[in-house]
Amino acid sequence: MVFAPSDLEHPIVQAPLAGGPSTPALAGAVCEAGGLGFLGAGYKTVDAVAEDIAALRALTGRPFGVNVFAPPAPVADAAAVERYAAALGDDAGAPRHDDDGWEAKLDLLAHERVPVISFTFGCPTDVMVDGLRSKGCAVWVTVTTPAEARRAAAVGADALVVQGVEAGGHRGSFDDEAPGEIGLLALLQLVRAAVDRPLVATGGIVTGAGVAAVLAAGASAAALGTAFMLTPEAATSAAHRAALQDDRATALTRAFTGRLARGIANRFLREHPDAPHAYPDVHYVTAPIRAAARERGDAEAINLWAGQAHELATAEPAGDLVRRLSAEAEAALREAAARLPGSTSPPA
Amino acid sequence: MVFAPSDLEHPIVQAPLAGGPSTPALAGAVCEAGGLGFLGAGYKTVDAVAEDIAALRALTGRPFGVNVFAPPAPVADAAAVERYAAALGDDAGAPRHDDDGWEAKLDLLAHERVPVISFTFGCPTDVMVDGLRSKGCAVWVTVTTPAEARRAAAVGADALVVQGVEAGGHRGSFDDEAPGEIGLLALLQLVRAAVDRPLVATGGIVTGAGVAAVLAAGASAAALGTAFMLTPEAATSAAHRAALQDDRATALTRAFTGRLARGIANRFLREHPDAPHAYPDVHYVTAPIRAAARERGDAEAINLWAGQAHELATAEPAGDLVRRLSAEAEAALREAAARLPGSTSPPA
Repeated sequence: MVFAPSDLEHPIVQAPLAGGPSTPALAGAVCEAGGLGFLGAGYKTVDAVAEDIAALRALTGRPFGVNVFAPPAPVADAAAVERYAAALGDDAGAPRHDDDGWEAKLDLLAHERVPVISFTFGCPTDVMVDGLRSKGCAVWVTVTTPAEARRAAAVGADALVVQGVEAGGHRGSFDDEAPGEIGLLALLQLVRAAVDRPLVATGGIVTGAGVAAVLAAGASAAALGTAFMLTPEAATSAAHRAALQDDRATALTRAFTGRLARGIANRFLREHPDAPHAYPDVHYVTAPIRAAARERGDAEAINLWAGQAHELATAEPAGDLVRRLSAEAEAALREAAARLPGSTSPPA
Repeated sequence: MVFAPSDLEHPIVQAPLAGGPSTPALAGAVCEAGGLGFLGAGYKTVDAVAEDIAALRALTGRPFGVNVFAPPAPVADAAAVERYAAALGDDAGAPRHDDDGWEAKLDLLAHERVPVISFTFGCPTDVMVDGLRSKGCAVWVTVTTPAEARRAAAVGADALVVQGVEAGGHRGSFDDEAPGEIGLLALLQLVRAAVDRPLVATGGIVTGAGVAAVLAAGASAAALGTAFMLTPEAATSAAHRAALQDDRATALTRAFTGRLARGIANRFLREHPDAPHAYPDVHYVTAPIRAAARERGDAEAINLWAGQAHELATAEPAGDLVRRLSAEAEAALREAAARLPGSTSPPA
């Protein structure tokens, strides 16, 4: 039997946060508190991922997860990427198309018998799922529509990470151009009707009441990303931390990476509403611009990934956050049940 | 004391459904079952609203609500409306700008001492709120952002209808061009942190688990629109009923009315992505086109308002739906609470 979300002491998953905030310290603190910590393998070399896993295992003996990016489709319009790079000026990097070391990373994770491997940006084949499970790895697949959920269930995914449009960072859609910007609560109802799999809900959840809501909607656990970004264990940049605490609106954008993602609507995001659909090519084009902006503390040119409820995030230690969210979720469920007409009847 | 959402036997509100589906029979069945039925006053003459109220009062002695549209802002670009009308051809109607009989309708509702008056598209003044409450009317205001929630609380609204981006039909935003397409669950968390008022959650809720989720998130009740559109009591057109049962994607559009609304992405919606921001002017421009399409049963040119989980709607009688949703919500809350770590402790 592989690890299941219902095995958690607290129904709290720390979302992978690839591209900066993800650290072994964060994942370790979440695991030790009774939640499920995640490492983000995206954008890292295989060796760096192996080091992260070793560092995490030195901090905890509990189950944890690693998230991988499924390989991107070929870029349809390379000329559009060149035009975008030219428009960004001399600071832009060269476009590059790669698969983020997908096969080597999967080999590593299987070899390491990582308890939970989650997929983003695409669906593994049933052969892949069977192979990973034979090593003791649970396979979770991120879905954003009922159709993606049906496909993930068909390949035998052990659980589905159901991502609402509220989520910060990249949308996990299999096809970046497919329609379906579905709110989390609507999506949970649709996915539950479509498939019979354990669900982990994610997107805009920052409070115990938010956790309670997705459990009431039938999820086995809630995955929170933005909520963990202000914890001391996260490697979130200072400029990003400051931005998360303001009540600025977020928007979906392809300006930074060529793939739809939600961030705080800063100057760079607003100035490039028509960035090409070309991932990860655009990621490499904007990488030097973003690095320079981070260097000078200019939050207006950094990808400030954030979910829609980011201003409710708190700066407490990650383990405290896990325990507090779980306790508040339980209280919220009991209070809501007590307000209903049948609440005088004995509990089932 | 005016009526409060917590006074309901079942925490279920039937959303007003202006523009067709709303009937006294639907509102009456919901009220008699222990939910809160609503009439939509929008698009109707004052006399027609008075007739609806009389018809509803003949069906139920229980509290009910009537929804009114706040007056629209002047249209910024009349030439854009003329161009849109010209592009639609000879079947288009003449643009017209009016306030939907706002003052006369409010006078009627106050005179009739309607138990709940809800506002959409804008916020009443504090003088208006006080005046209506002095007649025994509770004032509810539809909000789509934390800033709107703060304004509604400041004028003394008795409850806020918190509308997520998942909702079918018009977004209730005070300003149609303001950003903030916020998912319901994120919005509930943000609004609760911003104001201390009873909340009625709406947007994409079609199942008992969905109702349970918003109660767990702190709402006093759930308002469902699409979920009631297949009931025999609703005056939903045959073409619209058929479309709701397909799993077609929805989208936000200004194509039909000049104000952002969510409908099933049919041909007319897709063909007019850049319809002007001009409400209700565009409503009058497209009205004859939509009427003709309804006449010939052409679902591709009708405004097929639908929330994001529309394919889960059922065709049962409205009273049965209210009772079933409430019972399922309660079961969902109890099941979720039982799965949590503290569930062995006695209920609070």
